[in-house]
Amino acid sequence: MSYIGRLYDPVLATDLYELTMAASYFREGKKGIATFSLHIRDYPPNRAYFVAAGLASFLEILGDFRFSGDAIDYLRSLGKFDEDFLSYLKSFRFTGSVRALPEGTIFFAQEPLVEITAPIIEGQILETIVMNTFHVETLIASKAARCVAAAGGRGLVDFSLRRTHGIDAGVKTARSSYLVGFLGTSNVLAGRLYGIPVFGTMAHSYITSFDREIDAFMAYARSFPENTVLLLDTYDTLKAAEKAVEVARYLENRGYRLRGVRLDSGDLVELSRRVKDIFVKNGMDYVSIMASGSLDEFALEELIKSGAHIDAVGIGTKLGVSADAPYLDLAYKLVEYEGKPILKLSPGKRTWVGRKQVYRYFDGRGQMSHDVLTLMEDKREGMPLLRDVVINGQILHNPTLDEARANFAEQFSSLPEEYRSIRPDVKYRVEIGEPLLRLEERVAREKLRDQLRG
Amino acid sequence: MSYIGRLYDPVLATDLYELTMAASYFREGKKGIATFSLHIRDYPPNRAYFVAAGLASFLEILGDFRFSGDAIDYLRSLGKFDEDFLSYLKSFRFTGSVRALPEGTIFFAQEPLVEITAPIIEGQILETIVMNTFHVETLIASKAARCVAAAGGRGLVDFSLRRTHGIDAGVKTARSSYLVGFLGTSNVLAGRLYGIPVFGTMAHSYITSFDREIDAFMAYARSFPENTVLLLDTYDTLKAAEKAVEVARYLENRGYRLRGVRLDSGDLVELSRRVKDIFVKNGMDYVSIMASGSLDEFALEELIKSGAHIDAVGIGTKLGVSADAPYLDLAYKLVEYEGKPILKLSPGKRTWVGRKQVYRYFDGRGQMSHDVLTLMEDKREGMPLLRDVVINGQILHNPTLDEARANFAEQFSSLPEEYRSIRPDVKYRVEIGEPLLRLEERVAREKLRDQLRG
Repeated sequence: MSYIGRLYDPVLATDLYELTMAASYFREGKKGIATFSLHIRDYPPNRAYFVAAGLASFLEILGDFRFSGDAIDYLRSLGKFDEDFLSYLKSFRFTGSVRALPEGTIFFAQEPLVEITAPIIEGQILETIVMNTFHVETLIASKAARCVAAAGGRGLVDFSLRRTHGIDAGVKTARSSYLVGFLGTSNVLAGRLYGIPVFGTMAHSYITSFDREIDAFMAYARSFPENTVLLLDTYDTLKAAEKAVEVARYLENRGYRLRGVRLDSGDLVELSRRVKDIFVKNGMDYVSIMASGSLDEFALEELIKSGAHIDAVGIGTKLGVSADAPYLDLAYKLVEYEGKPILKLSPGKRTWVGRKQVYRYFDGRGQMSHDVLTLMEDKREGMPLLRDVVINGQILHNPTLDEARANFAEQFSSLPEEYRSIRPDVKYRVEIGEPLLRLEERVAREKLRDQLRG
Repeated sequence: MSYIGRLYDPVLATDLYELTMAASYFREGKKGIATFSLHIRDYPPNRAYFVAAGLASFLEILGDFRFSGDAIDYLRSLGKFDEDFLSYLKSFRFTGSVRALPEGTIFFAQEPLVEITAPIIEGQILETIVMNTFHVETLIASKAARCVAAAGGRGLVDFSLRRTHGIDAGVKTARSSYLVGFLGTSNVLAGRLYGIPVFGTMAHSYITSFDREIDAFMAYARSFPENTVLLLDTYDTLKAAEKAVEVARYLENRGYRLRGVRLDSGDLVELSRRVKDIFVKNGMDYVSIMASGSLDEFALEELIKSGAHIDAVGIGTKLGVSADAPYLDLAYKLVEYEGKPILKLSPGKRTWVGRKQVYRYFDGRGQMSHDVLTLMEDKREGMPLLRDVVINGQILHNPTLDEARANFAEQFSSLPEEYRSIRPDVKYRVEIGEPLLRLEERVAREKLRDQLRG
């Protein structure tokens, strides 16, 4: 296997303790059915909702989850595992069931994003890859949705690959941002993998490699007459805009149109308005103005409020690392074992016991009003959010990215305005169903009593 | 190719514009030799130095940098590239040269981390993967070095995989933190790839799956008598410590020793001291106490100052996403083309022209005193930092991780204390060599004159 192939073996992408715990379960003959639940404990600053993402990647990994000979050899070399356990791993197949929020679903703190029910050893072995996969994709989808909200209908393109934390994060940023309505990405690999539209024209290096800026502009227009977006800020943005008019004229004479210009630094409000004036004055209102350079939802909102004339926006680093909130407090917890509800009491880390469902309710105008988190068996009238996606090891249905995108668009339109704000001061109401509340209290009482006994 | 294999094709992990620019260079017959320079523009908050990392990954990628048939087919499907250019890509091989800071080298803002000299089209095509690779590894190595500085000799283990931005970031976090002196990682894949020691024992889910905490502890001790670290905070940390004493007694009777206990929540200062007392009182001073749970260099410094009794520390999320500074202002700039120095004037984005070298100077006690950034041809006496690593497409030498680790350890010991502070208020002196300064000024004057001419 090549370096790159080995590098991304998702089966070994696990914390060692998942395997030591698995080995101990195996040795102790612990084969009971467990349910693990994945949820986000609380909101990072300025967040009032999350966007579910990561299920498609997880199902791809799960469908092919086998310990390779190379993996087994490596584990053997650690000297921690006996041959019985290693041959169990060799024949490992996931036989359990998975319930999950479809990608693009809007959800809230404390609500399960995924619940996995399987022999405990299987649910344990999957912990790290489940967390890693859902964490980054949900993080970025949630950040990207904020950019969409701030953009007020302007087209957004993901430019983040150069500063995402690795290639995997780059691909997942492109996918997660497209999921919530970005037009596309600069990331060619994401285009290849997911069929996402790819965008890109030129960088400063292209321009500086020519003696004169106009030479660079003209060379590019000759190479890509149908799709030229000129970068204006290498030397002097306004002078470059005048040169862009020349290029547009050249293209017009050949039956093409200059597609756009890009501003990547400086006072984008002032520059975008003056550049727009230049094109209007020259009868080239059609040239679209793209902005980029350290932008995020906060900068975008400010630009638009200040009257910048921007048609499209490239969003890079701050999206790709979710700069203002680079992680979520995501937890994967054992909530049921052999039919019994499970609770841990660690300070600040309480979880809701048992297998659960989330029901969503809407007001008269189709806007989301509140959710109810309750036990799975507490069937209700509202819209249930968790769906069966794997039953007894069989993957039922892995929605396409387009389906997920449509799901998000529909959900986002039913999320009341005050939650979509990029500085929300509201908290969505998640009621706890009576049966869940009662069970939780009973188990907590019992656990505390056990503790008092010692 | 499998999904996972395709997912990580580093050749397609590029911004589309690298390829459109390349196509335009190709069409225009622009084949001049270019030098691109990678540097960090400025320090994020609380940073006074960086640790170079990413070179090994980059050389692995470079050594196998070929456009696959699948990649070419995808690019053709975009309808942007002609067959001549696609066949050029098909036969693409890197023929240029690379000079770089060896991994583990301490460096500063404005200093080149890498310089690539090659036909412009080759240097351009590599831009995104160069940036992506060096960015994340340097980011994490620099963050991890801060943890090492704050730990005051205590052993550190990387626990970040569950919340890194994807698998790639997880592997790179494990490697980059080991590079700067971490003992190892929980990440099995990183262990497999780099031979890094792997650590891990149990999570809360293991304990809660048993009826009683003591049953879980005993089961684990039976499975791994030589390497048991008991997690104490599932219900009540101090009561769990008393149970750990029972387990230690059981192990002693069988000729083993309880290796340690781990505290993952609550008041770690108070708990660690009381847990330590319990072991001391029972003549088990040998049991080491590990802390984890939302730790970083800031929390660590505070814990140690407050007198926590901690022997080892697991550092997770905040390391793996470099939470207080999740990105670096890294730039890859064209600095020379066909022997001519190149400059762009974009506000706030000035770069130093030409091919460069960094010389380091030390004081009488072997401590770093200052660096000089100058043109390559301005040969000096000091220690040159950039080394030849690839010449005419041939990779010269890719140091091992152990060599890089030793390099860091040596460099770190010569970095004066005030820079190693996690809240430094000093700025390391990087002088600009006379010839570089003169050249920069000349080129800036010329560029401005060109601009005035229009």
